[in-house]
Amino acid sequence: MKYVGQGRGFPLKIYVIGPIVLDGPPPDTVDVYERAAPPGCEVEVIFLDRGPASIESEYEEVLAAPDVVAKARDAEARGAEAVVVSCILDPGVPAAREQVSIPVLGPAQVSMLVAAMLGPRFSIVTVLERLIPPLHGLVNLYGHSERLASIRAIEVPVLDLRRNAPQVIKALASESIQAIEEDKAYGIILGCTALSGMGKSVQEVLRQRGYEVPVIDPTPTAIRLAAALAAAGLSHSKLAYPFPPEKRVAGYPDV
Amino acid sequence: MKYVGQGRGFPLKIYVIGPIVLDGPPPDTVDVYERAAPPGCEVEVIFLDRGPASIESEYEEVLAAPDVVAKARDAEARGAEAVVVSCILDPGVPAAREQVSIPVLGPAQVSMLVAAMLGPRFSIVTVLERLIPPLHGLVNLYGHSERLASIRAIEVPVLDLRRNAPQVIKALASESIQAIEEDKAYGIILGCTALSGMGKSVQEVLRQRGYEVPVIDPTPTAIRLAAALAAAGLSHSKLAYPFPPEKRVAGYPDV
Amino acid sequence: MKYVGQGRGFPLKIYVIGPIVLDGPPPDTVDVYERAAPPGCEVEVIFLDRGPASIESEYEEVLAAPDVVAKARDAEARGAEAVVVSCILDPGVPAAREQVSIPVLGPAQVSMLVAAMLGPRFSIVTVLERLIPPLHGLVNLYGHSERLASIRAIEVPVLDLRRNAPQVIKALASESIQAIEEDKAYGIILGCTALSGMGKSVQEVLRQRGYEVPVIDPTPTAIRLAAALAAAGLSHSKLAYPFPPEKRVAGYPDV
Amino acid sequence: MKYVGQGRGFPLKIYVIGPIVLDGPPPDTVDVYERAAPPGCEVEVIFLDRGPASIESEYEEVLAAPDVVAKARDAEARGAEAVVVSCILDPGVPAAREQVSIPVLGPAQVSMLVAAMLGPRFSIVTVLERLIPPLHGLVNLYGHSERLASIRAIEVPVLDLRRNAPQVIKALASESIQAIEEDKAYGIILGCTALSGMGKSVQEVLRQRGYEVPVIDPTPTAIRLAAALAAAGLSHSKLAYPFPPEKRVAGYPDV
Amino acid sequence: MKYVGQGRGFPLKIYVIGPIVLDGPPPDTVDVYERAAPPGCEVEVIFLDRGPASIESEYEEVLAAPDVVAKARDAEARGAEAVVVSCILDPGVPAAREQVSIPVLGPAQVSMLVAAMLGPRFSIVTVLERLIPPLHGLVNLYGHSERLASIRAIEVPVLDLRRNAPQVIKALASESIQAIEEDKAYGIILGCTALSGMGKSVQEVLRQRGYEVPVIDPTPTAIRLAAALAAAGLSHSKLAYPFPPEKRVAGYPDV
Amino acid sequence: MKYVGQGRGFPLKIYVIGPIVLDGPPPDTVDVYERAAPPGCEVEVIFLDRGPASIESEYEEVLAAPDVVAKARDAEARGAEAVVVSCILDPGVPAAREQVSIPVLGPAQVSMLVAAMLGPRFSIVTVLERLIPPLHGLVNLYGHSERLASIRAIEVPVLDLRRNAPQVIKALASESIQAIEEDKAYGIILGCTALSGMGKSVQEVLRQRGYEVPVIDPTPTAIRLAAALAAAGLSHSKLAYPFPPEKRVAGYPDV
Repeated sequence: MKYVGQGRGFPLKIYVIGPIVLDGPPPDTVDVYERAAPPGCEVEVIFLDRGPASIESEYEEVLAAPDVVAKARDAEARGAEAVVVSCILDPGVPAAREQVSIPVLGPAQVSMLVAAMLGPRFSIVTVLERLIPPLHGLVNLYGHSERLASIRAIEVPVLDLRRNAPQVIKALASESIQAIEEDKAYGIILGCTALSGMGKSVQEVLRQRGYEVPVIDPTPTAIRLAAALAAAGLSHSKLAYPFPPEKRVAGYPDV
Repeated sequence: MKYVGQGRGFPLKIYVIGPIVLDGPPPDTVDVYERAAPPGCEVEVIFLDRGPASIESEYEEVLAAPDVVAKARDAEARGAEAVVVSCILDPGVPAAREQVSIPVLGPAQVSMLVAAMLGPRFSIVTVLERLIPPLHGLVNLYGHSERLASIRAIEVPVLDLRRNAPQVIKALASESIQAIEEDKAYGIILGCTALSGMGKSVQEVLRQRGYEVPVIDPTPTAIRLAAALAAAGLSHSKLAYPFPPEKRVAGYPDV
Repeated sequence: MKYVGQGRGFPLKIYVIGPIVLDGPPPDTVDVYERAAPPGCEVEVIFLDRGPASIESEYEEVLAAPDVVAKARDAEARGAEAVVVSCILDPGVPAAREQVSIPVLGPAQVSMLVAAMLGPRFSIVTVLERLIPPLHGLVNLYGHSERLASIRAIEVPVLDLRRNAPQVIKALASESIQAIEEDKAYGIILGCTALSGMGKSVQEVLRQRGYEVPVIDPTPTAIRLAAALAAAGLSHSKLAYPFPPEKRVAGYPDV
Repeated sequence: MKYVGQGRGFPLKIYVIGPIVLDGPPPDTVDVYERAAPPGCEVEVIFLDRGPASIESEYEEVLAAPDVVAKARDAEARGAEAVVVSCILDPGVPAAREQVSIPVLGPAQVSMLVAAMLGPRFSIVTVLERLIPPLHGLVNLYGHSERLASIRAIEVPVLDLRRNAPQVIKALASESIQAIEEDKAYGIILGCTALSGMGKSVQEVLRQRGYEVPVIDPTPTAIRLAAALAAAGLSHSKLAYPFPPEKRVAGYPDV
Repeated sequence: MKYVGQGRGFPLKIYVIGPIVLDGPPPDTVDVYERAAPPGCEVEVIFLDRGPASIESEYEEVLAAPDVVAKARDAEARGAEAVVVSCILDPGVPAAREQVSIPVLGPAQVSMLVAAMLGPRFSIVTVLERLIPPLHGLVNLYGHSERLASIRAIEVPVLDLRRNAPQVIKALASESIQAIEEDKAYGIILGCTALSGMGKSVQEVLRQRGYEVPVIDPTPTAIRLAAALAAAGLSHSKLAYPFPPEKRVAGYPDV
Repeated sequence: MKYVGQGRGFPLKIYVIGPIVLDGPPPDTVDVYERAAPPGCEVEVIFLDRGPASIESEYEEVLAAPDVVAKARDAEARGAEAVVVSCILDPGVPAAREQVSIPVLGPAQVSMLVAAMLGPRFSIVTVLERLIPPLHGLVNLYGHSERLASIRAIEVPVLDLRRNAPQVIKALASESIQAIEEDKAYGIILGCTALSGMGKSVQEVLRQRGYEVPVIDPTPTAIRLAAALAAAGLSHSKLAYPFPPEKRVAGYPDV
């Protein structure tokens, strides 16, 4: 019996929130997001008005979170059927889930779940050593500590990443190979959304080395899963993330 | 910035293996699978030549598994980009992954990962008490024991399920409500793929009761995730599931 | 051999950040904080300029966090030797740890560690059902899921708590007794810092019932531990919480 | 007070199922099984009619499992008091437990439990890298991930193992020493039942190196424990492994 | 191929240490131990010179432990091939393992491992509520917390247990049935070695109720496993339990 | 609002039990304990009449425990408000908790909880390899296995430690650096109470190496926490550690 997808749940619209304030044109990772959208799925990328220029610390995550929530609420108001917050620290995701009914996904949670599905242990290769402790926190929070092989870093600041993509890919592949050989990883998560789009190239280097393992590009993967959930009519539990009470708030002119 | 999905990775073809031998016409859950396919995704449902009429035990899972693997290999040979094995015990999934390079997903693993993403604790509501121990085994195997609120059963044999759908839905909703109120679940997995398509109705009963929680329909959800992974070029780790060696096999005429 | 404490590490000064904006006079829990300070320890309580009037959701936690970090930095600049963030969701604690070298403690983390030290399993009795999922998140994050007996709620909004203290104490004791008898708890954490000071009264009701169990008052306990750590010269690992990089931040006039 | 065992529960008969089809004479590991039987215990070794020539993959495990169940049922019918399935992947064990009331033991589960009893952390030294992921799966399934130091492989195909026993023993000892020194193992499980009988030799090499650690020979150990359980009147829970329902099965002429 | 056990490793001698001081004749549980010995296995039961009359607290465990170690050393000196310490709190077991090379087993550790082998979750039914916290400690220490369904107590002091065996059996069965029905246990451990010999009777009551589950009698099971390990030449890891250094000890005239 | 600590709960008196018998003058670590006492806190250090000269094994722990309990009971009788048992194996702590109502703390449990509070993963650096397995047992018992980076040893006998403090500090720092760089620890626990007072020096060496991490001195930290808990009116749960029953005890003249 053969069926062609009738597209139940489609067309649909997904907002990707880049949880940073832009200083110039948007980063070219944005092109990657477009390519991640399935047919019948429109992707709109928006950025913050209040927040940091990039997120490389828990401090910057905290600065980004309030406007992430506001932008998620806006997105739902403008007809979005799902929201993806494009930063590997998943900033503001639980809070945004409280404010809306549509699914809000963070790339860290999605990537770890997908990695856990594709092999018994995975490693995360991120940009900076300093991101390792907060990523450890997320691994614990999301319940994957038994499946984590290691977290490794290539030590390149986020804003320098895309200036020299070939070298970054080489460094990512090199750490991934060590993760496979020394830490016994069977899959790799790219541990920064600014690496979006590099997954396939890293995967190709590993394949040439003889390692056929999944390399997960966090934001594109989160976009695809957001589309899948939204089309299925699935969202986070509002019992777990209820709407917040109305209340006086000071110091946020737009709240 | 707005983008419309270019459908990179689409069109694609997914095979759903019903891991049972048919005695008559296929069950009407098959219609449900069609509706789960995203645009540009063709779904073909196939059944076994060797195996049991339904799976309600680990014994029947074992009888089904060899032909599941053979059918997965056939599916890849015929151009499938992904395979879903439609039974909540995920029969033969690791073995099938060894034989092919395309992603092979089991609805139990997918549903638990999605449930874990949408709330802090979930319950599984299955058909028979006797499925609870093997489902406990899968919960441990997939690493979700800390997130499991409970596994409950409505005690209806698989082959009787669709004769009286309204009563089954009522029973599922009743156990789900107890899972929420007594076991502190924040989301529900329907614990049998023969319940496919009943998720929305159960979710609606819960909503009327005031509980806005995800109710996960295992096979449709697995189909949507399989499409998402296949389109992203992600599959299971061949380092974790390498091709088996060539070897003499007795008693399986078609192997 | 007998020794009298020479007070090495004393006198010292602790700042308690009430992570809310005040609408009128400070809540009378503030008196409780004073009583928690050991001899030679000065406690200063400060509130936010930017944030919500109370914290009953992850959303409000997100609104509070940026100014919590700013106030922690101020506290260190003004000579504080330790900081306690007085809210059971520990808002902004990891981010604040990045910005300073002095210990920053959250009452949830401290209370769970103390409860784990005093008996094999504990329950949390909080104010609202809606706080249960984020508290579950913290239990997982801090690694206590095997020791958690239950999280229960008395269902009274934070701002109403102190209007009728005797009834609140009665409700807390009643849920604690159920936690002991039904959920097999051996200790109780009061799951909201607005309950500060009620611990002794609840403990007394339990004692009359025949249950000699610790009832942990989160903020006073955190103050005492903060003093102990600061005097010992112990703080959080700066390897785990390094200073954030300098970077452009928009929308926070004072950052 | 001194007592001599009256042999309550003895004599008894154990069937060892070699879950492979033989091509010639049985492997000499069979002699080892004999030596493992306690006084008053008869051991009968049987092989499969349907299945692979050896098991080095999850695929081959799946091919073996249906006939393992049939042979376990036969064994009980012929008066066996316990069954051991002699393969480190424990193929078909849960399914066989459903079909019979006598204890059915797999050497992986038994070995891990014995290893956990004799020291705080253990390593598994197996034959092929490709067995490491399924062994990781069993470690998780049986709940030993916190006690696992490592899984290592000597990289020799199963059917070549016994051609050069001295070299295999040397390789096993070498990996065991690395497991002790680098991975902090306190005991070793031989991770393939085709290594049966080599335990003592490996243990001797380790002893000469100064390491007095248990080296567990999986099938002999499982035989001894099967005898102990059967004599004690203990078997698996039929509540957890109930008899399967009667049902049409296709493609298995003898089922 | 059939083999009759040649009894390799037999005959052997096991010492059971009753970790209490006797006030009169030994308890009749001693008869039970005899019946647990396999053919060719001699069992000698010895009691303490220094210690409490029974063990119902961690305090009494501490009083018993020093002489348990001394008696284990004596047992090895007198030719024992294994030692079982007959108390569900496993008093002095790790310390005794340091002093000897022969296996020293505690019934709690053995029973939990056997229960874990026979079903996915088990309950312990003990004599007194006050034993529940130390048993929780052992469950954590031995790594079974995910498999524990519950610990229940019948509330009868140890020294009264055998005066009214039928009532005790009835109470044990009643708590076991609740463990099965309410706590979802699939097997039962009798949580006090003074209940030795009652396992079969409890199992029979459960069977009549329709529950075919293992009921584990701790000391007899430990004796059978001790015989199995000793005959196999397996003991605890001396790397994990090395001999203690020679050193001055005060206050123990016989040390 | 500023407050100066009124010293509620102060003055108070803490007994430190050195769980060894002295052969000559007390070790100079005793001076360290004095410095750890906060203002208004008197510390009295007492030693055992029955027990070993030092504790380097589980055997010696067992020899120490009975008199630890007796001394804790004496301490309470003499007006102590808290007790610290100064040995990293926490000998007799649960038993002592049964005998008294005042808090009894062990430095291992306290140190692990403090380390868990200050960073995501910690290592323990102890004196002898042979202490690693019992420390692993405590890590499991106290529930920190997910947070443990490693346990390392400098291989110096306890009684030699203080003869050459500079070399010991150098060795501790060297292992700590390896724990940080190779095992990914973010904090260090000194794994022997005879190292008391060396924490600051080790921390200084690490700081010069660029690692700003907490180095926890177990007994001083336990003294500070004991004072904090006692002043707060918090003690262990008597529901978890009830008073033992009255009972005949043989061989302990003073019990």
